[in-house]
Amino acid sequence: MINTLDSLAGLMKMDTTICALATPPGTGAIAVIRVSGKNTFSILEKIFIPTGKRLRVSDMSSHTVHLGRIVDGDEMIDEVLLTIFRAPKSYTGQDVAEISCHGSRYIQSSILTLLMKNGAIMAKPGEFTLRAYLNGKLDLSQAEAVADLINAEARSAHQLALKQMRGGFSSEIQTMRQSLIDFVSLIELELDFPEEDVEFADRSQLINLLASLREGLHKLLDSFKMGNVIKNGVPVAIIGKPNVGKSTLLNALLNDERAIVSDIPGTTRDTVEDTIVLDGITFRFIDTAGLRQSDDVIETLGIARTYEKINQARIILYVFDVNDTTIEEIEANLEDFRHHIQDPDKKFILVANKTDLLVEAPRHFANFVELDTVFISAKRKENTTLLTDLLVKSVRDFVNAEGTVISNIRHYEAISKADAALAKVEHDIAAGLSPDLLSSDIRTALHYLGEITGTTITSEDILGNIFSKFCIGK
Amino acid sequence: MINTLDSLAGLMKMDTTICALATPPGTGAIAVIRVSGKNTFSILEKIFIPTGKRLRVSDMSSHTVHLGRIVDGDEMIDEVLLTIFRAPKSYTGQDVAEISCHGSRYIQSSILTLLMKNGAIMAKPGEFTLRAYLNGKLDLSQAEAVADLINAEARSAHQLALKQMRGGFSSEIQTMRQSLIDFVSLIELELDFPEEDVEFADRSQLINLLASLREGLHKLLDSFKMGNVIKNGVPVAIIGKPNVGKSTLLNALLNDERAIVSDIPGTTRDTVEDTIVLDGITFRFIDTAGLRQSDDVIETLGIARTYEKINQARIILYVFDVNDTTIEEIEANLEDFRHHIQDPDKKFILVANKTDLLVEAPRHFANFVELDTVFISAKRKENTTLLTDLLVKSVRDFVNAEGTVISNIRHYEAISKADAALAKVEHDIAAGLSPDLLSSDIRTALHYLGEITGTTITSEDILGNIFSKFCIGK
Repeated sequence: MINTLDSLAGLMKMDTTICALATPPGTGAIAVIRVSGKNTFSILEKIFIPTGKRLRVSDMSSHTVHLGRIVDGDEMIDEVLLTIFRAPKSYTGQDVAEISCHGSRYIQSSILTLLMKNGAIMAKPGEFTLRAYLNGKLDLSQAEAVADLINAEARSAHQLALKQMRGGFSSEIQTMRQSLIDFVSLIELELDFPEEDVEFADRSQLINLLASLREGLHKLLDSFKMGNVIKNGVPVAIIGKPNVGKSTLLNALLNDERAIVSDIPGTTRDTVEDTIVLDGITFRFIDTAGLRQSDDVIETLGIARTYEKINQARIILYVFDVNDTTIEEIEANLEDFRHHIQDPDKKFILVANKTDLLVEAPRHFANFVELDTVFISAKRKENTTLLTDLLVKSVRDFVNAEGTVISNIRHYEAISKADAALAKVEHDIAAGLSPDLLSSDIRTALHYLGEITGTTITSEDILGNIFSKFCIGK
Repeated sequence: MINTLDSLAGLMKMDTTICALATPPGTGAIAVIRVSGKNTFSILEKIFIPTGKRLRVSDMSSHTVHLGRIVDGDEMIDEVLLTIFRAPKSYTGQDVAEISCHGSRYIQSSILTLLMKNGAIMAKPGEFTLRAYLNGKLDLSQAEAVADLINAEARSAHQLALKQMRGGFSSEIQTMRQSLIDFVSLIELELDFPEEDVEFADRSQLINLLASLREGLHKLLDSFKMGNVIKNGVPVAIIGKPNVGKSTLLNALLNDERAIVSDIPGTTRDTVEDTIVLDGITFRFIDTAGLRQSDDVIETLGIARTYEKINQARIILYVFDVNDTTIEEIEANLEDFRHHIQDPDKKFILVANKTDLLVEAPRHFANFVELDTVFISAKRKENTTLLTDLLVKSVRDFVNAEGTVISNIRHYEAISKADAALAKVEHDIAAGLSPDLLSSDIRTALHYLGEITGTTITSEDILGNIFSKFCIGK
């Protein structure tokens, strides 16, 4: 969307008046069109006629709603409600109007066309939120959380985005920055009195501070693995030999969840292919397109394709037919896996399927103590809740973890760089380097921490990249 | 949706508080949830905490907007804008609140669930508008126009619905009813003085009134053909022998239009299959699914299937290959059509295709004076605008017709019955029937006219049928 510095410079001018559809595209009872900029009210004055009163748009109070008609000269477009937000008490901090019109696509596009005819321009993705950031209504990490919030499909991702949007993470970063700023001021004071050879900034206190800050940063870096999983879903691979019932299992899991989702009328969603939400956590099945069509995508265990799937997954469901699989066979396969897999955090769950065909209890499997095993009949949907409970349990611990969780790769990178800069400061102190070098390295750390919230002047490239991912109208 | 009288009786109680998503389903910058009923504000009080002020929901003024948080106990769901409309100054005439939340599906369904947990119930399709009707905010024909307005995809249908929603049609019907009511009152006065043998109501004036009313009704009945075409699109059939380029022509027409529609960002629509909008009029291609897949649906002209298509159509595009078709052949086919077609209003357009393959000018076709003929190359999209201009021209006249146009089959039927009743009154007068019989037949006509606007007590069946066609949230 925003490909050049030129267009971003255009965005940052903020002297244009922008408009966009703010509600989802399509037909509904109503739709909302948002307008922001210095000419908002003068443009509305030309196209909005309030019903039953002589009030001019420019005289309407902030946070009030007015019934009236949208007209294009003699032609009436629609009867609408107009809501007025006066700068700075608005989402963008500018004069904002929201037109709540009837929800036909014809009306939506007619009103947008009319606004453009009268001097507004179509907003680019995220441009309303960019203006909010540039006007100091939100910091950068809060702005990013707005996009995350809109895309959150499950409770845990929703709560994560909401916390970030409300500034929890920002204030944590701000506290860290402030303690560094206090220190660097003292160090820079030493530069003003070079002949005095006095240390205003206590080096041992600085060493303690650095240790505590880096511990905090490491916690945030560690939290990214969970944050990413919460935001994008827990990747799950279903593996096993042909005809052990992998696709039946997947369908059983997916169908259960869909029934729940469609319980609330008016909110039936275009189901995201091959994800389920269990207890607020999204589980995403890896590369299941082939799996659902036929069972023979993975002909045998041990092939490269299977390891690829396993390496992408956080949870691996190893499905086998309980009627014709020996312990030795399973143990050999698991041994094989262990040789190929780097990440020790992966969770293996053994799914002993086709219990409906069992003639006697599978006593010989009781030996599997080192791995969670569930005995199910995917075909009859028997005991599948044992499996879903196990899926939830295996991520519950870290999802409920206390403290701030970061879920944004940009934040992860900025924190990594800040941490590296602080490591350098520690090294500087140990080497007894001069205050000006210390100060310079602390300022590097401050720069990277500031990038997260946008306190540090952020490059236009970064801004363009962040806001182009938003939906239009936000 | 509403299948039983029981559930309609439930609808008509109006003592419940209803809620629904009012914006299109899906993900967007924002979504709007609407709540209406006597407990609207007390329910909101439990789940909405205004930001930065101590104002209670029940103390907020009508037509004001408030920033705050939606909470479920300790858990925050979203930061929202709450708009207050106090009875009777609202869409439904009841206390109404609109929650403008972030547009994730998770948030939408969480807030709806929370409202229901606190005593609201999910609105049935059209229930907000039904309440508006029952509270006298709209008459029945205006309520129907709201649904038409939301579904209008082109300018002419939009203007038709808007006019009806604004009450143009209702006031015309009301004027007719009033003149009949004035007369029937005089006639019924005669019943009170039977011994006097005096005619309070001048019979010759009544005859004139009846003639003028029936003329008006006939105009409305005639307008239905256009109204229906405007609302549902002009049905167009493309016929012709195999391999004359019918599907190429259809694709050329459809692609041109799609490019225009997608010009306005944010409003890209899920293209309605096989319709185009030209100059505000929707053209709908009949049974083109087969046509687009292959050319051999209609193997030869003259088969039953072709006549079926022709009989559904208002405009017939008869496509032929200009390089290998003789005048005699075309004339024979046209002659054949005339024998089979009842409706004289159908418009034939001859499309002489494949001009790109012509080696010399097709002089011999200039003889076709009685039918519009266009020479095009569908493959190269040459001169296709000649054809689209002709399509528009052939419906322009009646679309621009003055006066009221009816587009609703229910109205058509009511007017037909009213007209039949008035014809009976004319007959009664000619036969010199007594005032009580006259009065009874006039009251029948009044009843049917009143059904259109809902002035006459309408049966619950009819109401259920009307409102169940609405989208949820309206």
